[in-house]
Amino acid sequence: MPRYRLTLEYDGSPFSGWQRQADRPSAQQALEDAVLRLTGEAAHVQGAGRTDAGVHALGQVAHLDLSRDWEPFRLMEALNHHLRPAPVSILRAEAAGAEFHARFDATEREYLYRILNRRAPPALDRGRVWHLRQPLDAEAMHRAAQALVGRHDFTTFRAALCQAKSPVKTVDELRVSRVGEEIHIVARARSFLHNQVRSFVGTLERVGAGAWAPNDVAAALEARDRSACGPVAPPQGLYLVAVKYDGVQRPSEHSP
Amino acid sequence: MPRYRLTLEYDGSPFSGWQRQADRPSAQQALEDAVLRLTGEAAHVQGAGRTDAGVHALGQVAHLDLSRDWEPFRLMEALNHHLRPAPVSILRAEAAGAEFHARFDATEREYLYRILNRRAPPALDRGRVWHLRQPLDAEAMHRAAQALVGRHDFTTFRAALCQAKSPVKTVDELRVSRVGEEIHIVARARSFLHNQVRSFVGTLERVGAGAWAPNDVAAALEARDRSACGPVAPPQGLYLVAVKYDGVQRPSEHSP
Repeated sequence: MPRYRLTLEYDGSPFSGWQRQADRPSAQQALEDAVLRLTGEAAHVQGAGRTDAGVHALGQVAHLDLSRDWEPFRLMEALNHHLRPAPVSILRAEAAGAEFHARFDATEREYLYRILNRRAPPALDRGRVWHLRQPLDAEAMHRAAQALVGRHDFTTFRAALCQAKSPVKTVDELRVSRVGEEIHIVARARSFLHNQVRSFVGTLERVGAGAWAPNDVAAALEARDRSACGPVAPPQGLYLVAVKYDGVQRPSEHSP
Repeated sequence: MPRYRLTLEYDGSPFSGWQRQADRPSAQQALEDAVLRLTGEAAHVQGAGRTDAGVHALGQVAHLDLSRDWEPFRLMEALNHHLRPAPVSILRAEAAGAEFHARFDATEREYLYRILNRRAPPALDRGRVWHLRQPLDAEAMHRAAQALVGRHDFTTFRAALCQAKSPVKTVDELRVSRVGEEIHIVARARSFLHNQVRSFVGTLERVGAGAWAPNDVAAALEARDRSACGPVAPPQGLYLVAVKYDGVQRPSEHSP
């Protein structure tokens, strides 16, 4: 069966997350329903990142197998038609090798977290940012964040229900910068633990607010204890921006 | 009575426009209701720009009179509290002179129009952009737009129900540029006719799509005939970005 790779944007607000659940709408289900309406096939759509309820995607990647050959552009157009009115949009469809796996082959995932840091609540970006009224020191947050870059045991920053076998991960980048009224946190790694980015953001917020000293972040990491973590930031500020693949299957794609 | 100047952001989606209407929600009414809840006073809030249904604001300006003195920051905070859950947010409140008039003293209004120019529909910016699938030539749009800059009789680009006494206006800037997947049209003038910006955008879109030659825009302007106008662009891509004042009342504020 021919395999296709899809790049997706979605608004996480109405969904219980990426993953299909029995009783609540999910982005995966919206997509699988669109495939069913288009082809009559009950395809399984495998996503690269299992985003939580309320988390958005600008560049989620997924793969699926279909029984017939589709011209990728036509597949994208037809699925976008059948996705309506769900807030899920296919940005790109490509033919993929039979061995391509959206989740297991991913070599990098990039997330963006948006904090709106001003007194007035968001009118236009409601549900798209974490609104924090107290002025945050973005530079202090960035400095503290550097303790989290590299290969570490991230037990402190891992949700209790995380299913990963090991708490050891390598964070390639964790960058905090002020962009107008917003603070943006960019995180890149091959893979993340459950709630890892939101745990980072909630902890760094404590530094930005002056409640934690920058060194407290390194101490929290070293504690390897979930109770040493700051609060977990809410989901609506988080975006899965991009997933990269540079394994054997897709040697040409170092910067999609 | 002390007068206050407010700078506002709102999501135009749920509103019949800025202006209060008997039977439909408006941004003005949301604000006047919040003032009533806060102060018990039925204040009239006068806005600088009477945005249409579905049009958004990033920097609408309004003024109102209250019977007692308020510290402006406290007024902003209290009104933002009472505005919930309406998607209207007060970005700034200032004490204003008794002679300040948000609408009549404005010396410049700046609008932004966002076109999302890609095949895939917007998932996250639904209701925030005009989605156009056909690739548009932004440079041709910009060149054609320059015929509309300056002092002209804009009868062609004026809604039938426009109440302005004269169709003559001076457009200070009309700039079209590509910003990633979007095309942004920035329009600046002391004041605009009803539907003028959306009439500009709908007409320039015809040029960008190749259906009109750039010179057709100048010809449409010279026709001084509403029927010579291109289609009127939909409201959801339009934002009132800023209102400027540099009259006698506010000599210091040339670039707010």
